[in-house]
Amino acid sequence: MLTDLDEAGLLDYRSAVVDPEDFDAFWTAQLQRAAEHPIDVRATAVDSLLETIDVFDVRFAGHGGHPIRGWLYLPKHRTTPIPGVVQYQGYGGGRGHHLESLLWSSAGYAHLMMDSRGQGSGYRRGATADPVGPSGPTIPGQMTNGIEDPAGHYYTRLYVDAVRAVDALRSFSTVDVTRIAVVGGSQGGALALAAAALRDDVAAVVAHVPFLSDIRRASRITDAMPYKEIGRYLATHRDATERVFATLAYFDGVSLARRITAPTWLSAALMDSTCPPSTVYGVYHELAGEREIRLWEFNGHEGGGPDDDERALRALRAVFDRTNGIGRSKG
Amino acid sequence: MLTDLDEAGLLDYRSAVVDPEDFDAFWTAQLQRAAEHPIDVRATAVDSLLETIDVFDVRFAGHGGHPIRGWLYLPKHRTTPIPGVVQYQGYGGGRGHHLESLLWSSAGYAHLMMDSRGQGSGYRRGATADPVGPSGPTIPGQMTNGIEDPAGHYYTRLYVDAVRAVDALRSFSTVDVTRIAVVGGSQGGALALAAAALRDDVAAVVAHVPFLSDIRRASRITDAMPYKEIGRYLATHRDATERVFATLAYFDGVSLARRITAPTWLSAALMDSTCPPSTVYGVYHELAGEREIRLWEFNGHEGGGPDDDERALRALRAVFDRTNGIGRSKG
Amino acid sequence: MLTDLDEAGLLDYRSAVVDPEDFDAFWTAQLQRAAEHPIDVRATAVDSLLETIDVFDVRFAGHGGHPIRGWLYLPKHRTTPIPGVVQYQGYGGGRGHHLESLLWSSAGYAHLMMDSRGQGSGYRRGATADPVGPSGPTIPGQMTNGIEDPAGHYYTRLYVDAVRAVDALRSFSTVDVTRIAVVGGSQGGALALAAAALRDDVAAVVAHVPFLSDIRRASRITDAMPYKEIGRYLATHRDATERVFATLAYFDGVSLARRITAPTWLSAALMDSTCPPSTVYGVYHELAGEREIRLWEFNGHEGGGPDDDERALRALRAVFDRTNGIGRSKG
Amino acid sequence: MLTDLDEAGLLDYRSAVVDPEDFDAFWTAQLQRAAEHPIDVRATAVDSLLETIDVFDVRFAGHGGHPIRGWLYLPKHRTTPIPGVVQYQGYGGGRGHHLESLLWSSAGYAHLMMDSRGQGSGYRRGATADPVGPSGPTIPGQMTNGIEDPAGHYYTRLYVDAVRAVDALRSFSTVDVTRIAVVGGSQGGALALAAAALRDDVAAVVAHVPFLSDIRRASRITDAMPYKEIGRYLATHRDATERVFATLAYFDGVSLARRITAPTWLSAALMDSTCPPSTVYGVYHELAGEREIRLWEFNGHEGGGPDDDERALRALRAVFDRTNGIGRSKG
Amino acid sequence: MLTDLDEAGLLDYRSAVVDPEDFDAFWTAQLQRAAEHPIDVRATAVDSLLETIDVFDVRFAGHGGHPIRGWLYLPKHRTTPIPGVVQYQGYGGGRGHHLESLLWSSAGYAHLMMDSRGQGSGYRRGATADPVGPSGPTIPGQMTNGIEDPAGHYYTRLYVDAVRAVDALRSFSTVDVTRIAVVGGSQGGALALAAAALRDDVAAVVAHVPFLSDIRRASRITDAMPYKEIGRYLATHRDATERVFATLAYFDGVSLARRITAPTWLSAALMDSTCPPSTVYGVYHELAGEREIRLWEFNGHEGGGPDDDERALRALRAVFDRTNGIGRSKG
Amino acid sequence: MLTDLDEAGLLDYRSAVVDPEDFDAFWTAQLQRAAEHPIDVRATAVDSLLETIDVFDVRFAGHGGHPIRGWLYLPKHRTTPIPGVVQYQGYGGGRGHHLESLLWSSAGYAHLMMDSRGQGSGYRRGATADPVGPSGPTIPGQMTNGIEDPAGHYYTRLYVDAVRAVDALRSFSTVDVTRIAVVGGSQGGALALAAAALRDDVAAVVAHVPFLSDIRRASRITDAMPYKEIGRYLATHRDATERVFATLAYFDGVSLARRITAPTWLSAALMDSTCPPSTVYGVYHELAGEREIRLWEFNGHEGGGPDDDERALRALRAVFDRTNGIGRSKG
Repeated sequence: MLTDLDEAGLLDYRSAVVDPEDFDAFWTAQLQRAAEHPIDVRATAVDSLLETIDVFDVRFAGHGGHPIRGWLYLPKHRTTPIPGVVQYQGYGGGRGHHLESLLWSSAGYAHLMMDSRGQGSGYRRGATADPVGPSGPTIPGQMTNGIEDPAGHYYTRLYVDAVRAVDALRSFSTVDVTRIAVVGGSQGGALALAAAALRDDVAAVVAHVPFLSDIRRASRITDAMPYKEIGRYLATHRDATERVFATLAYFDGVSLARRITAPTWLSAALMDSTCPPSTVYGVYHELAGEREIRLWEFNGHEGGGPDDDERALRALRAVFDRTNGIGRSKG
Repeated sequence: MLTDLDEAGLLDYRSAVVDPEDFDAFWTAQLQRAAEHPIDVRATAVDSLLETIDVFDVRFAGHGGHPIRGWLYLPKHRTTPIPGVVQYQGYGGGRGHHLESLLWSSAGYAHLMMDSRGQGSGYRRGATADPVGPSGPTIPGQMTNGIEDPAGHYYTRLYVDAVRAVDALRSFSTVDVTRIAVVGGSQGGALALAAAALRDDVAAVVAHVPFLSDIRRASRITDAMPYKEIGRYLATHRDATERVFATLAYFDGVSLARRITAPTWLSAALMDSTCPPSTVYGVYHELAGEREIRLWEFNGHEGGGPDDDERALRALRAVFDRTNGIGRSKG
Repeated sequence: MLTDLDEAGLLDYRSAVVDPEDFDAFWTAQLQRAAEHPIDVRATAVDSLLETIDVFDVRFAGHGGHPIRGWLYLPKHRTTPIPGVVQYQGYGGGRGHHLESLLWSSAGYAHLMMDSRGQGSGYRRGATADPVGPSGPTIPGQMTNGIEDPAGHYYTRLYVDAVRAVDALRSFSTVDVTRIAVVGGSQGGALALAAAALRDDVAAVVAHVPFLSDIRRASRITDAMPYKEIGRYLATHRDATERVFATLAYFDGVSLARRITAPTWLSAALMDSTCPPSTVYGVYHELAGEREIRLWEFNGHEGGGPDDDERALRALRAVFDRTNGIGRSKG
Repeated sequence: MLTDLDEAGLLDYRSAVVDPEDFDAFWTAQLQRAAEHPIDVRATAVDSLLETIDVFDVRFAGHGGHPIRGWLYLPKHRTTPIPGVVQYQGYGGGRGHHLESLLWSSAGYAHLMMDSRGQGSGYRRGATADPVGPSGPTIPGQMTNGIEDPAGHYYTRLYVDAVRAVDALRSFSTVDVTRIAVVGGSQGGALALAAAALRDDVAAVVAHVPFLSDIRRASRITDAMPYKEIGRYLATHRDATERVFATLAYFDGVSLARRITAPTWLSAALMDSTCPPSTVYGVYHELAGEREIRLWEFNGHEGGGPDDDERALRALRAVFDRTNGIGRSKG
Repeated sequence: MLTDLDEAGLLDYRSAVVDPEDFDAFWTAQLQRAAEHPIDVRATAVDSLLETIDVFDVRFAGHGGHPIRGWLYLPKHRTTPIPGVVQYQGYGGGRGHHLESLLWSSAGYAHLMMDSRGQGSGYRRGATADPVGPSGPTIPGQMTNGIEDPAGHYYTRLYVDAVRAVDALRSFSTVDVTRIAVVGGSQGGALALAAAALRDDVAAVVAHVPFLSDIRRASRITDAMPYKEIGRYLATHRDATERVFATLAYFDGVSLARRITAPTWLSAALMDSTCPPSTVYGVYHELAGEREIRLWEFNGHEGGGPDDDERALRALRAVFDRTNGIGRSKG
Repeated sequence: MLTDLDEAGLLDYRSAVVDPEDFDAFWTAQLQRAAEHPIDVRATAVDSLLETIDVFDVRFAGHGGHPIRGWLYLPKHRTTPIPGVVQYQGYGGGRGHHLESLLWSSAGYAHLMMDSRGQGSGYRRGATADPVGPSGPTIPGQMTNGIEDPAGHYYTRLYVDAVRAVDALRSFSTVDVTRIAVVGGSQGGALALAAAALRDDVAAVVAHVPFLSDIRRASRITDAMPYKEIGRYLATHRDATERVFATLAYFDGVSLARRITAPTWLSAALMDSTCPPSTVYGVYHELAGEREIRLWEFNGHEGGGPDDDERALRALRAVFDRTNGIGRSKG
């Protein structure tokens, strides 16, 4: 049932999110610090039980040089170089079992499925630790891990991991570095937006029902997790409200969108109470490049599901054919 | 949390299910009647967006000659003949979007995903009608559709469809007819058991957390759907209890197990309230052939998920290597 | 709690429902096809255990000539002809046990309680099959049974049954055919509206908290069943939205209301999330004849309950006294 | 689902309830005190809108001489004297709207529907105050109203009302005083047991899924209201446990049963968590007279619903025919 | 999540509550009648196990002269006279265990914790009976106890108790009668408002998330208990709506606020569905004296919890220092 | 309602928990490593707004030398030395607001309320970070933080903090080091058991409804959090079961109990599904010293609440009077 704006309202809505003054400086500094660690990609072939796909257990150095795990899937019968896709996970999930994500490689892509540090026990198991403890008390989950300090926040680490996952994929010779897309749903969508905003070599972006967008609005209009983690923290730490949202401003998809020039495909769902549609349209209206959004009228947070997947496959086929692998640059 | 027997209890448990006297006659008659309709398999290539797999939209004549839909997946780079797998769906699901089921073909099998007539709107969409109306009032869902008459029951039609799906897969020349397995989870597991029990040419069976087993016990010890559909029907139709269970006896996995000689891999989950583990062990202890069961200690009805998938891949690899494609025959 | 419009909003609200162009032609054709089957009413006296009422187990030929069951109640001490009432059931219910519906006959009416084909296991048991299978996959329940084709939709059959139930009651000599009312609550209210809109000989209509009105609006503003069945279907069958609502347009109470000239009593409940009050006012504002609506401020879908019953008894007593049994005609 | 004993266990089960030593003295004193108030029955004819039944708004002097309301229904076409039925309500309900209870008078009985003092707002509205305040703090509801003192407990008042309702019905000349039955479900069943145990002129008893039986056991094995009111009270008043159960012992159906010699029909439901079946069998096994119990296998607290009603009608028809109106006496 | 007005809306909102014409006369009469009973305070020292606080078990004559219990806490090392605080409880709670409320005495106040008659079993146990029975049927709980007659309503009794609790505290020589504050949360906040409105010697008021304010609005915009008790009553007693709200008008915090001249501290919580914030702002905007309100952005009905306590301590410290114990008088 | 053993079963029950072989060596090593960091207690007076109690904001060096926060409460009028109490928090809670815990100091004790690192946002806010990140993916919450390695598990750090909190309290000259008790409920009870088992100078132990006891049994018989965090982790990490329980064995209250010689007061609640009573009796039966357990028949996890507090005050008063401050020693 409708609990957010309707279609007309979504088209009119513009987010009130304001970028922190030092937004770009913050991220430049974070990425530079991370760059002090070589990417150090290692890939080990897996006895996958598959005949059409080669699977590798990958690790690379993410934020702080911490080892980040992932699966690399390559179509066995390939003529290099092939386009690449980096995919990110939804909240609580990890890279999963290697048999769970066969889509992109079956469609001919070099596919890196990045694990989310510290997550990966909720519905797809992960294998990556987040060895950094929070700077204060937290609500269980990642939203308030480091909530009173941007540099120490969990999402600084995860966003940097996401950016560096593209470097990891680029390091494989089989990959056409001019044709790399970033994709994901929910938290994965936020990470795709982050990678596209903080790099200048991403060729396309697919973000389904993205999380972490228009965050303060979201935390007020829904009781669904994980946005509600913020509200639960503030219900106890009553004096922390402004500090908390000042921290979260560095991760807001609306600010990221203003920095994305690659073509971007979004989806939203009219009855999504986890990532309410207005917060996705808040992102959409700020995108700096080509953009398309699909609103699913009767869906919740599952969004378009396999129909979103098909739409993503078609979108990337079109953009990669059209561009013949252009190197997109920012600014 | 534990709501059924514990490990020791499961090993000791034996189901009290008694086969209807005319169980075999009933099914022989049903299959003969179905056999009057030629299998009439039609396959249309799909623009799948995939590069490693060929996908076909398939239909064949099921019970009553009704058209049953499915997806056929073939690895693009194949050397025929290849082993085949017929997969069945859980309750409420359909064959889904063609992008949703890439596992078995990626592992080198000719994979037929059968649609479940009339289902396919709950979590994976279907495309197959069940053009036969019930013989009386029902509780929404399939459990009580035709509940007071075995021949008119929904599951007679679906079981016959399941049996004929194997004929459909056998009709493709690319398939090694001596190496066809039937697989599925929950309702899909029940259908796999049915196909294996009612045919003599199935080489292996994989049934995860199977539904429709030890049905009367199940309907008394859990409030979870869909077993609860039976209880809801009987709560209103109070005088129908014996007729209802007399009907359902023709579909019980325990009786099917007594007729299965192909090697069978089961899984059960200790905390599964949808298909309580004792009802799966009720099946296990009656299997006539080789058998193996895996009990997942902390899982509910999701069972082993991708770990069950991996186990299934390993099992079939072993049995097909070992047997080199033996034609198994019944007693 | 208030989740729809308040009193002022309800008075201002006008539904956006547009009649399908061939609405009248569609129903004329359906009724003509049904009329090819003689009504064929059969009544068998029941050992009712009652002393003031005679009860008959009735069947008549509904849509497709299918046998539709019902109870006929007649006051034992009667001086014919007496006025008649056809009553329809809410969603999931059937005609019930013959002891459950003593009101109308105790009040002096010949009372036909029509069974709803295929329903009747949820809270009042039924005895009537719907022998027609759906034309595609469905969500459990009736809403999406035949959802992509008006002529094959479940509600075409049930509406035709409802229309013919009046013929069935008229066939009893004890009944004054000029004084027949149609009554019902929820789905039963929708059927009463249908019978009144599609016939020209109904003398009065009582529809409490009617279902199937302003359907698209309803399906967007509530998560309650059974409207939610539509949303659940569309959540999986994402491309079917327009076809689905095109089908449902043939059953919408708003369009029916435009064709009703008999005096009509409606009720709505301000806190009804099953049939939100705005959708009932959508009907109310379109009624072509005399009309009255009662809004219950603190009720949910139970509406006025026995107070609605009393109101209905008073209304019919007034209209039948006043008119002295006029034959009302349309247009 | 099964949460209490199964069929075999129910047959074996015997309640551990022990009668308070002064049980009979207590009730004798209570009834004598009540008898100081003349029964003072008043009946006012209601404009019932009915043609087969006469309805009267009745009041009589209950416990403390307080006015207790009720409906008296008489078949309009009657040949006196006719047998009578006193019916009691379930927890939270009242005598309801006068149109809600047409069964017994339609079956030829003089039917007195007694209101429950202070209740009657939950699902059937009442009209009777309980002008006595509790002797201490309470949990909302009646269970703990006066919980630490039997004479001051709510149920002492209500049980006395129930006993005197029979006197009220006997006072009507149209009633055959040798053929009066007491009936009810849930709390109404407890009241029927109380009236039969505390009088010697009740000819038959019908108690469906009776409440207030084997109370301490019930309060430990279910979390359903209203038994849970006891547990909620004791969760706060931790030192009151023994006093509370000492009070409740005066109302326990098990002790009542030991004093009932009239033929008694009980029903229980295997999946009833409101009044668990073992507590009903606790009553059954102690009944001193003829007895019959019906166990509904798949029902919850709704028990047999209209099937229980039919069973009650048949039972009374049999007993009243057989006895030809005997005056039954105790011990 | 936000379900009522947002910050801007709260500032603009003005309640539509209209005082009953005889509001003041009603309360004057009630208090005069109560005054016929001497206050009759009795205090018994408790073996409290505490070393810094003296605890007394207190009773005084409330409405009708009924004995009302409470705890009196005095700091052991005190130099009299000391300021006093009367505290009232939330709905369902009582004075609790004497160890549960050490705050105000530890802060140097003579602290009287008044028990709520008839309540005190939900989360803090009470010890006070409400010996007056309701004048008609009720919904469990206090809201509808006497709902159709102001003088007989439960809250007339409890409000009078609250007013007289101040007399009780004033009777202790250790207390500075010019410096007595009334405090409470939820129902306790309503009682504090009542005491301040109906007396002229209360020096300060603290009411956190007060209940019983803007009652009709509250009963329509939330489904949370205890406001919902009203709606549940009216759902059955459909014709009583206007009488019910006419009764409740005598207890409405909005009308009370218009009569309060003492400085008042309120709190509200933006996500409070038990006492929606607009109903608290309805009170705030009508306060006749100094006032301050704190809105907690991410809290529900727990409001500011210990932060509200700290705010209250600071407020009273300021007002009592500033005024040096002025005797405040009304108009 | 009863979901675990009844009273008789609890008395008979003995836990199957086996101590890890190196249990003592493990903890000796952990405490030695911690001891390399000086305790470094710092206390800052707080403007508490209280007149009977002095409050200090305390920090000391816990596991890894990390700063652990707490409140120290001292009765203002004290004659040193006074006995001391270290209190620990339940899961999700922190030391709270300094106004929330006035009991023990009001009773004359030097009271140190220890914060739980990383917790303190759920219902009482904390102020202490856990700066150590987990060694792998986790389920939100602390149970699976470091779950595959005892030395890296969260509870190793928290248990060491708990042990050192006693050192912190001992460092205040106002405290009588021979009379220090450790107290807590739920997780706080587990920490009290840990401090008593791993030190030899604790004079008394109070553990109400303790958590972390008989852990594997608990994780199988309840679905309540936080034990369920284990099950949720294992539902995804299916192969980790034995490693997980091998880790948790170092924290099990049953093993701790075998090492406790100080007199110990436990409480359990018969209807506690968070910490099922059998798991508490599992601890009780293994206690090496004096012991007493109180079973609350109708309580859930709230246990005895203030009645448990009173019992604790009485117990400590007795033991400290009796012993006159004995220094208890182990073995």
